[in-house]
Amino acid sequence: MGNPNRPGLEVCLSPALIDSFDARGKQVVIIDIFRASSTITAALYHGAREVIPVDSVAKCIALGKTVPGALIAGERNGRIAEGLEYGNSPSEYPRDFVEGRTLVLTTTNGTRLLHMIKGESALLIGSFLNLGLLGEYLREKAEPVLLCCAGWKNRVNLEDTLFAGALADQLRDTHDIHCDSARMAMRLFRQAGETSLLDYLKDSAHYQRLASFGLESDMAYCLSTDRHPVIPYLEEGALRALPKEPVKAD
Amino acid sequence: MGNPNRPGLEVCLSPALIDSFDARGKQVVIIDIFRASSTITAALYHGAREVIPVDSVAKCIALGKTVPGALIAGERNGRIAEGLEYGNSPSEYPRDFVEGRTLVLTTTNGTRLLHMIKGESALLIGSFLNLGLLGEYLREKAEPVLLCCAGWKNRVNLEDTLFAGALADQLRDTHDIHCDSARMAMRLFRQAGETSLLDYLKDSAHYQRLASFGLESDMAYCLSTDRHPVIPYLEEGALRALPKEPVKAD
Repeated sequence: MGNPNRPGLEVCLSPALIDSFDARGKQVVIIDIFRASSTITAALYHGAREVIPVDSVAKCIALGKTVPGALIAGERNGRIAEGLEYGNSPSEYPRDFVEGRTLVLTTTNGTRLLHMIKGESALLIGSFLNLGLLGEYLREKAEPVLLCCAGWKNRVNLEDTLFAGALADQLRDTHDIHCDSARMAMRLFRQAGETSLLDYLKDSAHYQRLASFGLESDMAYCLSTDRHPVIPYLEEGALRALPKEPVKAD
Repeated sequence: MGNPNRPGLEVCLSPALIDSFDARGKQVVIIDIFRASSTITAALYHGAREVIPVDSVAKCIALGKTVPGALIAGERNGRIAEGLEYGNSPSEYPRDFVEGRTLVLTTTNGTRLLHMIKGESALLIGSFLNLGLLGEYLREKAEPVLLCCAGWKNRVNLEDTLFAGALADQLRDTHDIHCDSARMAMRLFRQAGETSLLDYLKDSAHYQRLASFGLESDMAYCLSTDRHPVIPYLEEGALRALPKEPVKAD
């Protein structure tokens, strides 16, 4: 069934499972659909200079003071964290607000995971907003891929799993599926295709939680496929938009 | 969407996720479809006095010497472990062999999990062989349920997840689904219902591994629904068949 000549593809469904995987030498995609991945993608697409992910509100405030014009942002339990100025919604960062600025961002699950990956690997951010471009990039790279879901407080969640399945589906002709988590994610994504992503997610923990805060339109934004084709990648502690490859001369 | 008046149902997809759950006061079902759960269920249905799960081959051998007539059995990496006499196949334990005897069993993933559950909870063994009876029992108990998948070396696997989905589906009218893992398991089980469990599992890690050892018929056995209606439960370190409730006098 497998094709050992192809690079492998694995899916880690929760940060608590990361020790079962070896990230070294892999293209690692961090997935936190509701909402860190989506917010980072939106901000960089709209021209933010960089997004600096930090794992605590205190670090966010401290770092914000050292970077001129920095925006300090983040959420705890779905709301703007105390002491910060902005939240974790992709709709908060349009071009006329964020262009050229540095966003220092802390979130409950997503930014933590960025700090947990060890070893020399490329760290990228995946969201439905950049699905197609990211799939194209990984197909062309043709290197082993590890998709890491942020989940919710170490629990597996449906929206991150669905995105892992969507991205794995994009790589089905170039990569070899190495684990049942990837197979499960792909099958759920195909099942979701029989309805809409939004409808499929309505009976899920995170959707119901965020909907109780009135954030339905945010979730619809996060599920807009290919709205912001840009690939955020981590370099020296900051997320930046991956430059487009220069066109090769003949 | 939820119904807080009902007891909750949660699914833990890997032993590495167990710290995110609280097992106290719950009916905990241990799931290791290929093959510990199935072997334990088959042996007890066929009249074994008890099955003592141990977490190492050395303990299995040592304990076997102290119990008269004990069978020492277990596998490592899908084969009979060195120093033991029998393997981890449900077909190895027919009535005329196992009746009245004690089976001391060690397996790669399943028995380890039995020793990881902390707190005062009822520990039961679930497999497709006892699905219907176990569902009926848990519906009547009407207590919170935690379904624990053994997985494979801390990785999530498809067959344990599917069984969790099958059992959760049996409890959908009496229990409140508390986590996305349970929702995912139920949706995969429903998808599997469009074909057969065996076909659905052919593209999975464990199936392919065991098939490479020539164990296809074992897996078909493990997927036979309701073949051995008995509920193994843990009491003082041994798994025994749960006695049938006495018929109440009018």
